[in-house]
Amino acid sequence: MDVLVVGAGAVGTFYGAKLAQSGARVSLLCRSDYAHVREHGVHIRSVWGDFDFQPESVVRTCSEFAQSGRRADVLLVALKVLPDIDVVGTIRPAVAPGQTSILLLQNGIDIEPPVAAAFPENRVVSGLAFTCINRAGPGCVEHIDYGRVTLGDYPAGISDVTRRLGALFEAGGVPLHLSKDIVRARWLKLVWNAPFNPLSALCGGCTTREIMDCPEPAALARRVMEEVLAVAAAVGYPLDAEAIERNLNDTAEMKPYRTSMCLDLMAGRPLEVEAILGNAVRLARAKGVPVPHLETLYALLLQVDQRIRGAAAG
Amino acid sequence: MDVLVVGAGAVGTFYGAKLAQSGARVSLLCRSDYAHVREHGVHIRSVWGDFDFQPESVVRTCSEFAQSGRRADVLLVALKVLPDIDVVGTIRPAVAPGQTSILLLQNGIDIEPPVAAAFPENRVVSGLAFTCINRAGPGCVEHIDYGRVTLGDYPAGISDVTRRLGALFEAGGVPLHLSKDIVRARWLKLVWNAPFNPLSALCGGCTTREIMDCPEPAALARRVMEEVLAVAAAVGYPLDAEAIERNLNDTAEMKPYRTSMCLDLMAGRPLEVEAILGNAVRLARAKGVPVPHLETLYALLLQVDQRIRGAAAG
Repeated sequence: MDVLVVGAGAVGTFYGAKLAQSGARVSLLCRSDYAHVREHGVHIRSVWGDFDFQPESVVRTCSEFAQSGRRADVLLVALKVLPDIDVVGTIRPAVAPGQTSILLLQNGIDIEPPVAAAFPENRVVSGLAFTCINRAGPGCVEHIDYGRVTLGDYPAGISDVTRRLGALFEAGGVPLHLSKDIVRARWLKLVWNAPFNPLSALCGGCTTREIMDCPEPAALARRVMEEVLAVAAAVGYPLDAEAIERNLNDTAEMKPYRTSMCLDLMAGRPLEVEAILGNAVRLARAKGVPVPHLETLYALLLQVDQRIRGAAAG
Repeated sequence: MDVLVVGAGAVGTFYGAKLAQSGARVSLLCRSDYAHVREHGVHIRSVWGDFDFQPESVVRTCSEFAQSGRRADVLLVALKVLPDIDVVGTIRPAVAPGQTSILLLQNGIDIEPPVAAAFPENRVVSGLAFTCINRAGPGCVEHIDYGRVTLGDYPAGISDVTRRLGALFEAGGVPLHLSKDIVRARWLKLVWNAPFNPLSALCGGCTTREIMDCPEPAALARRVMEEVLAVAAAVGYPLDAEAIERNLNDTAEMKPYRTSMCLDLMAGRPLEVEAILGNAVRLARAKGVPVPHLETLYALLLQVDQRIRGAAAG
């Protein structure tokens, strides 16, 4: 299987490397680390064991990939979900209609529709990575904890290509779950992400433990989860209310963790506001579901994100 | 009139100095600036004109004031409203039952009850300062803009001492409003404070203009104002809904302003979370008024405040 990883941040590089370990021919689209990775490849430091990964090819754009005469069976898209990142335009040159499958290994809710609409003849696979992973330097990724992947066809089902991808991940030691109902799985992940990413960021950088130890913020996390369940139900994905208790208990017991949004904020990087909150708020408004807690967090994050972008620009 | 200013931050020092300008004998209770103020007095830089102010006496505690044989007709209390500042215990040694009036020139809602309960024989005057004022150094205060004061007896009415205080402020050039219904006036001020203090702080330090220029945060400000009106009405202070439009329009047009909570956050100082949000949220809960936006801001501010206190503690 030929794979092109688009968005070779920590998540894309790590899971691309795992696919390569299992025998896939994996190319990387890199921007900042292009020269380094082309010369030295990638080094993965992982709780599952360190390893090196030499990509099949390293390119700067999908056009460059296509012009080199290569083709991908699968594009592994691990770009951040930001308003100024045009996923469709970025991947289009590497998408062969009816042939290339597109795996979106990205955060958030309702992120697949633009890609599915732009490439109606192509399989869109939607994936969730439950992992704690960071870029540790040029061409170097540090995998700290967790690592499970959930895959499923968008909007539903499990196709052959999804099974083959899953088998490659599993062969590389990645705990895998195939879901016939990946949108529901995204909503279930949002039950945790919707409170803990914003709270940890809006508090200026605190851990999940600090949130759970403070009664009002912990109660707020619960109310945000209730709103996520209400929106999910309204758009056709009723979730078991027990998910709230389970998520809160797990969070109280797991080791203190800084969310990706918290780390982005602390590093002055743009935040995935729309994927994690904005899309859910828009769906809620379209369905007339009141989500005042989500709306408050969303408004605050937009303001913070604007400040971050202003600081970065100036 | 003999006045002891308790809490000689920028607000207390400035308004104490204005009373002295009009002929009151004003003493200051200082902690950090004690030695400097005792030796050099106070310098006020003000848009209304600079002036110096030599306090009648400078003390470190109310006991010291009482032991010096002095007595105050009025205690001007301008302490920050924080859980770890015990207003009643601080002022008790300087309160002569039935004689000393207590002017609370402090932020927030529902801050008078503990003082009124502790000193049932004393007049409690409640005051609001609408001003932009900062400490500019030891014994130096910079008055940048505005300055209006609203005074009234707590819980209602206008007594002679309030009129005399008002007359002294006016003689010093302070725009003054006497209110028979000071609790209502506090709620009216909260219509502005409840959204703009938290939003400016939670966004990591942004101005009122930045908030008004961003549609979702501006809409959030409106919803928070609506909740404040609902709580005020439930506790017996129905406000004219037109206050919302007026506050939003004024904010959109006034020059960009950083709220006191925003400045406290940026300086790493504890935030007046309870006075500005906690008390309103508690009243709302007691009356069964839903205030999800206020609750969300409150929970986030508690978490931020805990982080600030943790950082300050080491």
